[in-house]
Amino acid sequence: MKEQERGALGVWLVGARGAVATCVAYGLEGLRSGLLEPTGIATETEPFAGLPLRDFGDMVLGGHEITSQKLDRSAADLVRHGILRPELVAASTVEAAAYDARIRPGLLDGPDVGRADLDPAAATLSGTSPRTQVEGLRADIDAFQRTNELERVVVVYLASTEAWRDEKDSWQDLAAFERALDEGSELPASCLYAYAALTGGHPFVNFTPNRGASIPALRELARMKGVPHCGNDGKTGETLLKTTLAPMFLARALKVHAWQGYNILGNKDGASLADPVRREAKLRNKDHVLRAILKQPQMHSEVGIDFVPSLHDWKTAWDFIHFEGFLGAKMSLQFTWTGSDSALAAPLVIDLVRLADLSAARGEAGEMAHTGCFFKAPIAGGTHDFHAQFQALLEYAARKV
Amino acid sequence: MKEQERGALGVWLVGARGAVATCVAYGLEGLRSGLLEPTGIATETEPFAGLPLRDFGDMVLGGHEITSQKLDRSAADLVRHGILRPELVAASTVEAAAYDARIRPGLLDGPDVGRADLDPAAATLSGTSPRTQVEGLRADIDAFQRTNELERVVVVYLASTEAWRDEKDSWQDLAAFERALDEGSELPASCLYAYAALTGGHPFVNFTPNRGASIPALRELARMKGVPHCGNDGKTGETLLKTTLAPMFLARALKVHAWQGYNILGNKDGASLADPVRREAKLRNKDHVLRAILKQPQMHSEVGIDFVPSLHDWKTAWDFIHFEGFLGAKMSLQFTWTGSDSALAAPLVIDLVRLADLSAARGEAGEMAHTGCFFKAPIAGGTHDFHAQFQALLEYAARKV
Amino acid sequence: MKEQERGALGVWLVGARGAVATCVAYGLEGLRSGLLEPTGIATETEPFAGLPLRDFGDMVLGGHEITSQKLDRSAADLVRHGILRPELVAASTVEAAAYDARIRPGLLDGPDVGRADLDPAAATLSGTSPRTQVEGLRADIDAFQRTNELERVVVVYLASTEAWRDEKDSWQDLAAFERALDEGSELPASCLYAYAALTGGHPFVNFTPNRGASIPALRELARMKGVPHCGNDGKTGETLLKTTLAPMFLARALKVHAWQGYNILGNKDGASLADPVRREAKLRNKDHVLRAILKQPQMHSEVGIDFVPSLHDWKTAWDFIHFEGFLGAKMSLQFTWTGSDSALAAPLVIDLVRLADLSAARGEAGEMAHTGCFFKAPIAGGTHDFHAQFQALLEYAARKV
Amino acid sequence: MKEQERGALGVWLVGARGAVATCVAYGLEGLRSGLLEPTGIATETEPFAGLPLRDFGDMVLGGHEITSQKLDRSAADLVRHGILRPELVAASTVEAAAYDARIRPGLLDGPDVGRADLDPAAATLSGTSPRTQVEGLRADIDAFQRTNELERVVVVYLASTEAWRDEKDSWQDLAAFERALDEGSELPASCLYAYAALTGGHPFVNFTPNRGASIPALRELARMKGVPHCGNDGKTGETLLKTTLAPMFLARALKVHAWQGYNILGNKDGASLADPVRREAKLRNKDHVLRAILKQPQMHSEVGIDFVPSLHDWKTAWDFIHFEGFLGAKMSLQFTWTGSDSALAAPLVIDLVRLADLSAARGEAGEMAHTGCFFKAPIAGGTHDFHAQFQALLEYAARKV
Repeated sequence: MKEQERGALGVWLVGARGAVATCVAYGLEGLRSGLLEPTGIATETEPFAGLPLRDFGDMVLGGHEITSQKLDRSAADLVRHGILRPELVAASTVEAAAYDARIRPGLLDGPDVGRADLDPAAATLSGTSPRTQVEGLRADIDAFQRTNELERVVVVYLASTEAWRDEKDSWQDLAAFERALDEGSELPASCLYAYAALTGGHPFVNFTPNRGASIPALRELARMKGVPHCGNDGKTGETLLKTTLAPMFLARALKVHAWQGYNILGNKDGASLADPVRREAKLRNKDHVLRAILKQPQMHSEVGIDFVPSLHDWKTAWDFIHFEGFLGAKMSLQFTWTGSDSALAAPLVIDLVRLADLSAARGEAGEMAHTGCFFKAPIAGGTHDFHAQFQALLEYAARKV
Repeated sequence: MKEQERGALGVWLVGARGAVATCVAYGLEGLRSGLLEPTGIATETEPFAGLPLRDFGDMVLGGHEITSQKLDRSAADLVRHGILRPELVAASTVEAAAYDARIRPGLLDGPDVGRADLDPAAATLSGTSPRTQVEGLRADIDAFQRTNELERVVVVYLASTEAWRDEKDSWQDLAAFERALDEGSELPASCLYAYAALTGGHPFVNFTPNRGASIPALRELARMKGVPHCGNDGKTGETLLKTTLAPMFLARALKVHAWQGYNILGNKDGASLADPVRREAKLRNKDHVLRAILKQPQMHSEVGIDFVPSLHDWKTAWDFIHFEGFLGAKMSLQFTWTGSDSALAAPLVIDLVRLADLSAARGEAGEMAHTGCFFKAPIAGGTHDFHAQFQALLEYAARKV
Repeated sequence: MKEQERGALGVWLVGARGAVATCVAYGLEGLRSGLLEPTGIATETEPFAGLPLRDFGDMVLGGHEITSQKLDRSAADLVRHGILRPELVAASTVEAAAYDARIRPGLLDGPDVGRADLDPAAATLSGTSPRTQVEGLRADIDAFQRTNELERVVVVYLASTEAWRDEKDSWQDLAAFERALDEGSELPASCLYAYAALTGGHPFVNFTPNRGASIPALRELARMKGVPHCGNDGKTGETLLKTTLAPMFLARALKVHAWQGYNILGNKDGASLADPVRREAKLRNKDHVLRAILKQPQMHSEVGIDFVPSLHDWKTAWDFIHFEGFLGAKMSLQFTWTGSDSALAAPLVIDLVRLADLSAARGEAGEMAHTGCFFKAPIAGGTHDFHAQFQALLEYAARKV
Repeated sequence: MKEQERGALGVWLVGARGAVATCVAYGLEGLRSGLLEPTGIATETEPFAGLPLRDFGDMVLGGHEITSQKLDRSAADLVRHGILRPELVAASTVEAAAYDARIRPGLLDGPDVGRADLDPAAATLSGTSPRTQVEGLRADIDAFQRTNELERVVVVYLASTEAWRDEKDSWQDLAAFERALDEGSELPASCLYAYAALTGGHPFVNFTPNRGASIPALRELARMKGVPHCGNDGKTGETLLKTTLAPMFLARALKVHAWQGYNILGNKDGASLADPVRREAKLRNKDHVLRAILKQPQMHSEVGIDFVPSLHDWKTAWDFIHFEGFLGAKMSLQFTWTGSDSALAAPLVIDLVRLADLSAARGEAGEMAHTGCFFKAPIAGGTHDFHAQFQALLEYAARKV
């Protein structure tokens, strides 16, 4: 791969000053400067060594954002709570400012309209028709690509969890979707972003539980345009553990009576999930995986998410698994997982950007089925067993070398 | 498979009145009578449905034992501590008495000589020469087979943990081993049992950390005689979890700084493990698996086992995993596993008996490499990743159907 | 105390075949027969040795119940789930049957009307006017006392959690309450029971979060009639721990940022608490104690109760306490408490019966302020600090010897 | 108390650049500058408001140290591990340098001689006779007092855990101790420090499990000289919780079968406790408190301390309490405590300095019996029940106002 012969890779982050995006931005700079090791980045490990993956130094960041808070404020918050190291932030001020300058006002999801801390320009864009909105979004991305002479732009959707909506007829095929767009019908912002990216030919990664490119209409669009995409809902913590542990219970023929999970966290994601309407999508994904793996219809399971402000970005999950073994003996497993939500998510974003770039370079179109291990609800479906999912990724990597 | 045309399967349990063997005996009777579901028995699940595995009703139990306590006393202990249900014990008295009557005095391991609760006949046998001992053991098993007109006998070694011994020259090949046997050298009792079983052509399952058939001399013997065998050290609890979870840390490129594990239990196994000389073998197996999977040489890890009498057969393990993610963020996972040691082990014993019987029927000889998922230290080596091990078992099952 | 000179003590349990009452009945019989030690019964410990407390053998049980399930069915459930020992149940059949025969149809709380498993006689009683209802209840208790020649009857209210009601004007004084009674206004069943007991001169113990005798009108009645009473809401598990631990944080000047508590249980209490309307009262009591002790208005706290059927009477609580120490260092404490809800409650019921009997014998009237350590919401108010509450009980005991 | 009329208070920290002393130094500066709130400092709370306690601004620090590492290196370590905030360290450089300059070479305990990172001057002092040593130590403290015109100096002993020694005859009375001193017998360094302090009339606080002033000879000396002192072994974490929780089990008449405690930590204290000879004293104190409170001789209990380097100053303790309630029901409580060892200790040091200063001002001599709540092994004995101990401190405070 002769880098001088091609442009760099653009990484367009939607939710560009959120905690995850901030960790991606400073993290990439730390990797470039050698202040950070690539801990948590799977594509840097040995099984992926032979793939022509993009270097960290060969990526340029930009993005959309709806709040007016500057990037260095997000960074200061993360320093205060022990996630970003002050040395790293201090050493990255120039790059961070350059990234901040490339951020453009984003699009509000309907129910967000009227929030206090919004960028007025975002509010303005959100007042226009859906067709105007997607054109605006796409123009921003195209300008980013042109200005920075980028070979390709991967769009990563990292915005807050949207209010849950049931499936609509207009989501079922591309024609209906475009009709809705023209008629000004209400559509989730995440779908508008996905539409803007895919029509522009930009690979799309949806790291949130929002609909994004996962609705039939947009999957059709991606295939038609020959653009790779993946999602939904990054598998970073409790669900990662659930899908790691549940297959063991199945393999050992143990009967799981109950799997209760409680999540507490204090970042923006936690705050927005305190709203039951938004929590819905996340809880569905978190609970569904267990039922899919364990195939025990009688099992009782529940997942809770509660907002505990003092935890900030540190998420603690307690899961209690009540199971029965031979002779009817009742047993239990409980675990407590404590991790930084954003520091867990950021390296997966980097992995996915590299994999989406690779897929695009190879002309793969539609759902990136090999990325199931990164998501709570993989668009392409398939098993939720983390080991089987990761095995599939390893096989993809081996095949492609 | 027309059962009337062949004899039943003999299952010879060494440690025949211990907690695991007691659970196997009452458990099999419960399965036969329909009082129990086959929870915990992997070979009863769908992927194994096509294999010609022995029916529960087609097994006859016998065994060796060194203590003089009767089987119903072991059962009463397990009832008192909530592991065996009183209804099951009440409904199984006839079968239990028949099994008890088939139990023969066993062999002491050197350091056990002089214990208080021993069967005097066991002490007598243990006073003879090694050659006489193995002949006595084999004669018992052969008589069991003859008397009960058994098609085959699988010997399962379930005795207490022996004192740890470093490898000896006389263990390295069969000739040296037989010389040591003739010269009356000190040899672990578990090896004498294995020798008696294998020379008799009986498949041998070693569920303990004791040496059993895992020394080179006896692996040579098994291959020479064409007898299948497997071991060592059943993977029932904390290690099962370790080998389920550790691959996830590897896959996610997370850096594990420390993995501390503490086990507390109160049964005979716990009591004998309170002796540091015996604990050695177990701790080696429990710690080794992590290093083998994670390949992180800088990792700090420790495993403790402490005897807490009031817990009886209920084992609780607390593991604390300190790891680092992206950006240097320090995170942790802790789990508490609470289960009945014997109710976890017994179904694996039944699975292994069936698999050993099947291997013998098919003429497979030597280490049963497909049984790695059942053991902390699989004799045939290979990965410790539980998922990969179970995948190998599924492939064996699929291949053989 | 010459027992022959006075009658025995009647103990009238409302919710007479519920899990707690069943444990009280079999437990008392076990204490009398010597099958059980008095573990969990504080009044049997040394500091109470000098008080003239009623012997276990000197108590006769009766009660009200709304369901038609027989006592031995409740007992069988508790045996199956490892709470009552089968030997104890087997040895208590005669006494249990006698108690069962003394149980009378109880009164439904309004929202319970129409449930499936109800005793038809209870449904009939509940259809009459409030005045008729309280007269019926009182007649049952009086007949129990007469028939069994009892010196005194203590009424213990153990029924299921009622739907939460806001305070009403008619609860504020006795005259208003009696007017409501005569007018047939809706009143909580727990208040009708308390009214029946107190007007009959029977000490009343309210072990539930229901209103019982805690409303001003009935506190007035108790004082007027010279009858001692206590409540509300037995402090058996998570709240016991909260009120044990929270004073330490206060004493050490640690700043508690968040105290999250999650309770999972599977008994009838759990099932009825799955109904948010009923859960309300309990959650208020569980959360209030923390705020009262810690006096940290900025603290975030939350309590959850979820119904997990497989746990049956075994309750598990996980609490996560996020606190700050010197230098702003953020720390945490988490605990998991696993206990049998009923086996924790039953001995407190026995203690309270003895203490109520003693208070009555001594002519103490109104709220038994010295019993604060037994309750989540002591009627007489005062500190929630468990140690201070228990100290007050010890001082009462010392003073009264 | 007119401060201008008297000198400031000297605080002489033995182990002056250790983690606790570093937290005391920067913490006091943070309190003075307003960068820190007095979280964790009990003497700043309301019940102590009326006592004439020394202001934070009225204290001058000095101390002894045996290693040559500078204070700012200790501070940098604590910043890196998230205990000291970088802003605080940055704002305290002048004061920190002044404190560092007042630190004098300390005395090695016998077994420490030969360690790698030692200050050569400390090694020199340690090579002299015990009498010369105590004179040297005292001369340092006296010079500190003179130079800084201090009204009084409180000596706080914070050095590493010494090797455990059984009691000796020469420790039993002052005459024998002074003979041993003159004869050059081996004496624990902590006793030499205590002797130097007490003969100089300086109140002495022993925050470690080392012998310090707790041996009979030195308690005699303190009484003779009229000097107040207190110790041993600060109660900061797991033992604080044990002594908070155990009284509840006693009050509720619950039978504790087993109390297992495991501590993992990674600071210097952890490293030195990895040495079984040093661990001895600490484990004795940690286990003894339970037996003293619970009075259950049959109880099984164990405490472990393991060194886990990656945890640095963050200590995690897991305790498992197996107990029995009414009806023989077996239950359990487990807790995980995660805190910064030094941030928990430092505010107690500040409290004890203030209380020792107050006692001296009031002419109280000998053991400060009211400080029991601060120690695992209070020199004056008495209950280990934390609540009762804190109550005693509150009563002292109320009495003295």
